[in-house]
Amino acid sequence: MTGWIAADWGTSRLRIWALGAGGDVTGSATSDEGMSRLTPDAFEPAFLRAAAGLLPEAGTVEVLICGMAGARTGWQEVSYAAVPCDPIACPERITTSDPRLNVRIIPGLSQSAPLDVMRGEETQIAGFLTVHPGYDGVICLPGTHTKWVRVAQGRVLTFRTAMTGELFDLLATRSTLAGLTDDGWDEAAFDQAVSVAVRSTGALAADLFGLRAAGLLEHVAPGAARARLSALLIGQEVASMRPIWQDRPVALIGDATLEDLYRRALDAAGQRAESFDAGELTLTGLCAAFETFREDCQ
Amino acid sequence: MTGWIAADWGTSRLRIWALGAGGDVTGSATSDEGMSRLTPDAFEPAFLRAAAGLLPEAGTVEVLICGMAGARTGWQEVSYAAVPCDPIACPERITTSDPRLNVRIIPGLSQSAPLDVMRGEETQIAGFLTVHPGYDGVICLPGTHTKWVRVAQGRVLTFRTAMTGELFDLLATRSTLAGLTDDGWDEAAFDQAVSVAVRSTGALAADLFGLRAAGLLEHVAPGAARARLSALLIGQEVASMRPIWQDRPVALIGDATLEDLYRRALDAAGQRAESFDAGELTLTGLCAAFETFREDCQ
Repeated sequence: MTGWIAADWGTSRLRIWALGAGGDVTGSATSDEGMSRLTPDAFEPAFLRAAAGLLPEAGTVEVLICGMAGARTGWQEVSYAAVPCDPIACPERITTSDPRLNVRIIPGLSQSAPLDVMRGEETQIAGFLTVHPGYDGVICLPGTHTKWVRVAQGRVLTFRTAMTGELFDLLATRSTLAGLTDDGWDEAAFDQAVSVAVRSTGALAADLFGLRAAGLLEHVAPGAARARLSALLIGQEVASMRPIWQDRPVALIGDATLEDLYRRALDAAGQRAESFDAGELTLTGLCAAFETFREDCQ
Repeated sequence: MTGWIAADWGTSRLRIWALGAGGDVTGSATSDEGMSRLTPDAFEPAFLRAAAGLLPEAGTVEVLICGMAGARTGWQEVSYAAVPCDPIACPERITTSDPRLNVRIIPGLSQSAPLDVMRGEETQIAGFLTVHPGYDGVICLPGTHTKWVRVAQGRVLTFRTAMTGELFDLLATRSTLAGLTDDGWDEAAFDQAVSVAVRSTGALAADLFGLRAAGLLEHVAPGAARARLSALLIGQEVASMRPIWQDRPVALIGDATLEDLYRRALDAAGQRAESFDAGELTLTGLCAAFETFREDCQ
C-alpha cells in the first residue's frame, strides 16, 4: 500500500517512486514528459498518467516533488532558498484539481553573489549529506548545467553553475565545428587534451577555433575532435572552479559517463574525486525531506 | 574597359570590382551567393551571373579572388602560407570552364603553434599595410571568427582567432539564454558588463549561466541581457588576447558596429584602438596583390 509518492521532475524526464508506510519502495514509474515538453497546465495530467498504477483507489496521497516542476515554466513556481542554508527548505504546497493529490514541491536554492540558481540538485545534496553526515568539502554534479557546491556542517555555503554540457551540445552539433565533432569518441585524445585544458588561461573562444584549424591543417579523426572539444570545455571549467575545490574533498554525483570525464579532468588538475550514484541519492534526499517536513510549515 | 577583376568571396557574400588599366574602379557588383550556399561546381556559374555586366565581350580577363572561395569547400582549395610571412603569397591559378576567365585565388595563412588559419583577412591586412607601410602593432579584425594579428616590417608574425561572434549567435538564439537575449540592445549595460568581463579570470561557462540566473532572480530587460552576453564574450576575448595587444598600437578593421564594441572593450581594458574601414582595405589589398603578382609564380 502506497504511503506517499516521491518524484524527481527534471527538464527531460519524470521519475516517480511509491513509498510504503515503512519507507520501502513499493513501486516506481518513469516518463519522458519532462518540463521542456509541458506547459504548466499539462503537468497534472502528465503526472496522473505516469503515476496511474501507484495512486490509491480512495483517499488522498502526499506527493513530494523535486526539480524543474517548481520552475517558472514548470507545474507551479515555488521559491528559492538563499544560501548559506540547509539544502532543503520547507516544501511548498501547490494547487491541484484531482482530489487524490496533495502535492508539495521542494524549493530550489539561489545565491546573490555571484548570482546563481539550482533546482533538483539540492535534493541530491540532501541525499548525499544523509549518507555522509558531517561531510566538509565540495560536491560536483556534472550535467547540462554542472553544479559545484561547497558544503559543510550539513549546509550549502556557496555554489557555482557552468553551462558546459549545453555548450558542448551546441558546439558539437550546431557550430562550424559540427562536421568535425558530431560523432565518435577517443578516450586517449580526451586525456591528452584535458591535461592541457586544466592549465588553461581562459582563451576558450580561441581554443575552440584551434579545433577547427586542427581539422583543416591536420588529419583529426571525428572521435578525437569530439573528445578534444569535451576536454577543452570540461578542462577549462575545472580550471576556473579551482578556488572552490582546491584542498578539499570532491564528491561527484551524476551520470556515470560524465562523472568519469570530470574525475579524469580533476585528476589532471591534481585533485582526486570520488563518484556516487545520482539516482539513489535523489530518492534518499526526497525521503529525508519527507521525514523532516511531515507537516506544512507555512 | 575592364583591365582585370577583383573579388572578395566570403562565407555569406561575394563582392566584385572591375578595374581599368589605370587601376580605377570601372564597375562593381555584389551577390549573396556566399561560400556557405554553394557547392564547388556552383562557383563558376555564380561568378558568371554576378560578374555578367563586367566581363569583356571578347578575350580573357584576369580575375583575382580572396576569401573562402579558396577553402576546402570553396571553388577550388588553394594552399595556406605559413606565418611568419608576407600577408599575401603567390595567388594560385585554378581551372575554369568559361574561356573568358583566368582565375587566381590568394592563399590563406596558417600557423602551427597554436594551430590557426585565416582566409580573406590576409588581403585586408595587405591593404592596411599598403596604406600604413612600416606599421608595427596589432590588427584586430572583428567578425564571426575574430582575428588578432601581430604585424611588423610588412609581415604577419603571429595571429589568433576567437570564434566569439559565432558563440554569440549560438547562445543568443539557440541556448537556454535565448529567451533572454534574442532581441534589443542596451549600450549602458554593455559598457558596465564589459568593464567587468575584461578583468575576467576565464570562467566563461559559469559567467554565462550567471546571465540565466540574473534573468530568473532579477528583472533584466532583453536588451540588457543581450548586451551583457555580448560584453561577456567580447570582454573575455579581449582579456585572453592581452599577450598580443599589450603595449602595442591596435588597429580595428571590420564592420562599424562590431568595431565599436571591440574598441569599447579594449578601452575598458586600458588600451586605445583606432578603427578602419574593411571594405576599402580589401580592394586596396587585392590591387596590391595584383601588382605584386602580375605573373604566375608557380
